[in-house]
Amino acid sequence: MTQSFDILLEKFKTYLAANPFEKEPIGLYQPVDYILNLGGKRIRPVLLLMAANLFTDDVEKSLPAAYAIEIFHCFSLVHDDIMDAAPLRRGKPSVHVKYSSNSGILSGDVMLIHAYGYLLKSTLHLSDPRPVLNIFNRVAIEVCEGQQMDMDFETRDDVTIPEYLKMIELKTSVLIGGALQVGALISGAAEAEAKLLADFGKNIGLAFQLQDDILDTFGDSASFGKKIGGDIAQNKKTFLYLKAREKADAVTLAALDRLYATDAKIDESEKIKTVTDIFARLNIEEDTELLKENYLEKAFQALNELNVSDDRKDHLITLSNKLMGRTV
Amino acid sequence: MTQSFDILLEKFKTYLAANPFEKEPIGLYQPVDYILNLGGKRIRPVLLLMAANLFTDDVEKSLPAAYAIEIFHCFSLVHDDIMDAAPLRRGKPSVHVKYSSNSGILSGDVMLIHAYGYLLKSTLHLSDPRPVLNIFNRVAIEVCEGQQMDMDFETRDDVTIPEYLKMIELKTSVLIGGALQVGALISGAAEAEAKLLADFGKNIGLAFQLQDDILDTFGDSASFGKKIGGDIAQNKKTFLYLKAREKADAVTLAALDRLYATDAKIDESEKIKTVTDIFARLNIEEDTELLKENYLEKAFQALNELNVSDDRKDHLITLSNKLMGRTV
Repeated sequence: MTQSFDILLEKFKTYLAANPFEKEPIGLYQPVDYILNLGGKRIRPVLLLMAANLFTDDVEKSLPAAYAIEIFHCFSLVHDDIMDAAPLRRGKPSVHVKYSSNSGILSGDVMLIHAYGYLLKSTLHLSDPRPVLNIFNRVAIEVCEGQQMDMDFETRDDVTIPEYLKMIELKTSVLIGGALQVGALISGAAEAEAKLLADFGKNIGLAFQLQDDILDTFGDSASFGKKIGGDIAQNKKTFLYLKAREKADAVTLAALDRLYATDAKIDESEKIKTVTDIFARLNIEEDTELLKENYLEKAFQALNELNVSDDRKDHLITLSNKLMGRTV
Repeated sequence: MTQSFDILLEKFKTYLAANPFEKEPIGLYQPVDYILNLGGKRIRPVLLLMAANLFTDDVEKSLPAAYAIEIFHCFSLVHDDIMDAAPLRRGKPSVHVKYSSNSGILSGDVMLIHAYGYLLKSTLHLSDPRPVLNIFNRVAIEVCEGQQMDMDFETRDDVTIPEYLKMIELKTSVLIGGALQVGALISGAAEAEAKLLADFGKNIGLAFQLQDDILDTFGDSASFGKKIGGDIAQNKKTFLYLKAREKADAVTLAALDRLYATDAKIDESEKIKTVTDIFARLNIEEDTELLKENYLEKAFQALNELNVSDDRKDHLITLSNKLMGRTV
């Protein structure tokens, strides 16, 4: 019997609460406990457990690896928030604001190392931990490469759509795929099966990012949970923006340039409205939906090929639909 | 036949030159190649090779691990330089000055991950890489803990001598011990033998740090290679300073407080001379020498216990004496 997202989430939360850092020197470990307990949906660790659960009913052995993935994810948030000078994380002061930039750097570093430690703990029953470690290493490197591309894009005005998609794949989607892949390997899945789950996760991640971009502009504030138009207000080069530039005629392009100029003297809600109108006129929402569906199709194709009985896949399918805002 | 430091150094330099990062995104990897090619004595990677060489004539398999240790060491330098706002590293602009703080953070992160990758490359011939990985993990965590203690000490005026010694042990010595321990394990040494080398390295590291502190105050500028009195000028809480406070009478203690006050209006060379005179009057150099000899004795005792023929230990003994400024 496989377990639902909510049941596995509770197991993960219990494990997290039972494994606080609270160690000396406290200046190093307090920020670690702080960021790990800021909340969040815990999607990555629970996905790891769900992948493990596809191949075994006993997910206990995967809990340290799930923790490792969450520690790694939080490490990347701490360092990203310093780099982006982001004051808030999950509505609370980010680590470098609450403590200091130096704390954020060093506590982040030690988190990355402890992530390897917890990952190793989940391999004790395996004869060789290297397949798991190699995947984690590759994913961790790709997340850094994605963050670098994201920073590079801020000062470039010639970012192409393939480059943008590569960036979000590296920065966010490979970690989702990697979590699933690691969970599968820890439960004894064959490498080819684990790879199918990596493909599933990567494509779900890409679809989810596009979904998020659509909702940020065309969503409903109440159900989205954040202010609509944030990406436009912050001049973010999302898929919507890049696709609009690709389709725009010269006049519209010039209008977009003026609206996104950093010294543009324009009221924020006015800007959001005007840009949203341009996107709507160019049918950008439909283009993005189309691409999203394309990724979703690839994701479910990979899941379909997975040599596991259909009923064991149910919870993963339910979660995917929920993430995509479908009530199916 | 074991190989000399210089021969192993050449082998390491060749390996380093053959394995540049030069990858995309260049913003991420240029700083990595920059710091790795700033020079330095390469003591840690060559010690790893020397430890490997104790147990086998073939050190080739240890080259990736030696590189891993150097990449890790350079990662810690990049992040420490940001935290200490240090403009120079080996006489050249530090990474965050030449590139940016964000580059320093992210390129440092990816170095830490690549260190694990190279470490794993050196374990391909082993049935289980975990003993090596666990040592590396522990050492990496301790280096972060030592750096945190060092930062904490800056704002504390009640640092004890045992606390100071613990800090330098974690911040600098455990990595030297860990390099030797990893080298031994990669060459198939038993865990107990590798542990003796860790003890040797840790104690040599502590002795070397004390030697460096002595030379910084009582050394000869030409042979030391840096300006004499730098630690005093920068108000560093070295063993010399802490020992002086311990031995000083109330009047001398008050004098030291005035000299080390951050708002002290005193000429730098005057300050260095006055503090050095106090240290000399209190026989601090002799106390430090005594402690240093104590660590050296422990180091050589561990090396002595090592179950390897004496002639194979010669190059390691020669290097230790050279590091201690002895021409024996």
